[in-house]
Amino acid sequence: MITCKDIENAANILSPYIFRTPLLESPLLNQTLNGRVLFKAECLQRTGSFKIRGASNKMLSLNKDQLARGVVAYSSGNHAQGVAAAAQSSGASATIVIPQDAPELKIANTKSYGANVVLYDRYTENREQIAKEIAEREGRVIVPPYEDKAIISGQGTVGLEIVEQLAERSIEAQALLCPCGGGGLISGLATIVKSKLPDMAIYAVEPKDFDDTRRSLETGERVSNDPEARSICDAIVTPMPGEITFDINRRLLSGGLVVDDSVVVQAIETAFTYLKVVVEPGAAVGLAAILSGAMPIEGKTVVVVLSGGNIEIGSLLKLLKGKAFGRSG
Amino acid sequence: MITCKDIENAANILSPYIFRTPLLESPLLNQTLNGRVLFKAECLQRTGSFKIRGASNKMLSLNKDQLARGVVAYSSGNHAQGVAAAAQSSGASATIVIPQDAPELKIANTKSYGANVVLYDRYTENREQIAKEIAEREGRVIVPPYEDKAIISGQGTVGLEIVEQLAERSIEAQALLCPCGGGGLISGLATIVKSKLPDMAIYAVEPKDFDDTRRSLETGERVSNDPEARSICDAIVTPMPGEITFDINRRLLSGGLVVDDSVVVQAIETAFTYLKVVVEPGAAVGLAAILSGAMPIEGKTVVVVLSGGNIEIGSLLKLLKGKAFGRSG
Repeated sequence: MITCKDIENAANILSPYIFRTPLLESPLLNQTLNGRVLFKAECLQRTGSFKIRGASNKMLSLNKDQLARGVVAYSSGNHAQGVAAAAQSSGASATIVIPQDAPELKIANTKSYGANVVLYDRYTENREQIAKEIAEREGRVIVPPYEDKAIISGQGTVGLEIVEQLAERSIEAQALLCPCGGGGLISGLATIVKSKLPDMAIYAVEPKDFDDTRRSLETGERVSNDPEARSICDAIVTPMPGEITFDINRRLLSGGLVVDDSVVVQAIETAFTYLKVVVEPGAAVGLAAILSGAMPIEGKTVVVVLSGGNIEIGSLLKLLKGKAFGRSG
Repeated sequence: MITCKDIENAANILSPYIFRTPLLESPLLNQTLNGRVLFKAECLQRTGSFKIRGASNKMLSLNKDQLARGVVAYSSGNHAQGVAAAAQSSGASATIVIPQDAPELKIANTKSYGANVVLYDRYTENREQIAKEIAEREGRVIVPPYEDKAIISGQGTVGLEIVEQLAERSIEAQALLCPCGGGGLISGLATIVKSKLPDMAIYAVEPKDFDDTRRSLETGERVSNDPEARSICDAIVTPMPGEITFDINRRLLSGGLVVDDSVVVQAIETAFTYLKVVVEPGAAVGLAAILSGAMPIEGKTVVVVLSGGNIEIGSLLKLLKGKAFGRSG
């Protein structure tokens, strides 16, 4: 059971380690969309994604002996950087298990924070098993990506900041769109947002063929994705909802929305052009849901979480390849 | 004579019309550069550059009769958008004289804010003359890009925010780097920064062959650039320093730094990769001065103004063309 108090406590202890990211807005984009959209820019967060929040909160919960033994984590790349940076701040050693096809930037940055990186094949090997073996062999504490109270409470601080920032600017929003992989961010965020602003509808947004949370919310039971499915949204292509996270999401979310990879590319471009921020594919799904019409916003005020910005400029060029302006380049 | 009071007054009346942009930082970039750099992200400002500050301040100084007659401005694109948006907020009509080779995005956005756009040839026609004729014919007030007390005071609010944001985070910085075209931003900013933090050295940064301010600071007299010179830094390729702005800059700046267009491209990439923000060429010169070594920062704390982000994604691709990752795209 995660409470608002857990998230408020996390916000207090995290403040020296994280940035309070801005809630961005483009009046010109609002004009184009016939609605008002506020973007929680976690792409501007330390390590380039919200993951530093949960990772730091977990690290700060460890005792001296645990810190001396160090941590191990498995991650598609953003949690990797979060844990590596949080471990560096705590003076603890970190070993991170990362899929070998993760963006190079994510792997390189994880190493820059001083972590030891172990690569695995995301489609044939079990990352939890690999991490467990390392934990047992080396006495390390496992820092899971979402199935953990400290992690979820840390990610929930994104929601607390949104509530505060809306209040500071006297803005009333009707809905909130948040990317959803394992569900750590949205479950923490929903815990605090639904408590403070119960009328705000919160939607999980997922890539096509990775809509496990949407389908689980509909059936009431956790269902998984086709292991053959692929998407450019590398940060949120998780196999199925977490147990702890889904138990929260089941009670608090209004539903799930699904977006196609092609609209995700359009959303990255839109963020570039109107907001001047770099958003990675998995973090752009909320805006994509608006652009595709999956979330109609005419006359409404909607908050969209841009959860990360860890995309290489070369990868962006590849995504844009074949588009008119790409050819002119 | 522009005083701190003018800038503080501007900050008060501007607050409903502008964003307080964040002072961004990347610990990973700091680690790479062996110094600490804080980025004032005016690329995240409304209209995508700081120009909305001065334009709004000027607009708010007009009386009812002047507002009814409307305004006219000449601009390479960012001041155009600033004036157009400020006029839209004030319910005044705006005509903007823009060079025909200005980035399409800047022209399109200016029109989106409801302004009437008049194109001219930046190398053969005199934009001030064109604006003057329109002003006389239609009774419009001219909103100049920098030679104006209200404009300079408005841009100076960037400096006030920097002073406040450094104080809030108890950061002591030794130097500040700011892009310089006509000098409106840096003269306003220097007025307040040098008053509050007299030990901070402020440098104007300019593109190669457009270092009129650097050379003018050295000789003590305003000198102009070669009219045949060209640069990708479209926002700051002005012919010579302004009279009012140079009079301030002569007293307050520590000097000028010059950067090559190729390092500007590198700076745009660095901002993309580490800060997750989109920076246009003319706004990236401060970071370029650090990357090129023109400004050594080892062991120092330096503030860099990223003055705007109005670059099309297609233009970024063109700038990157021929680079290794460009070819892989």
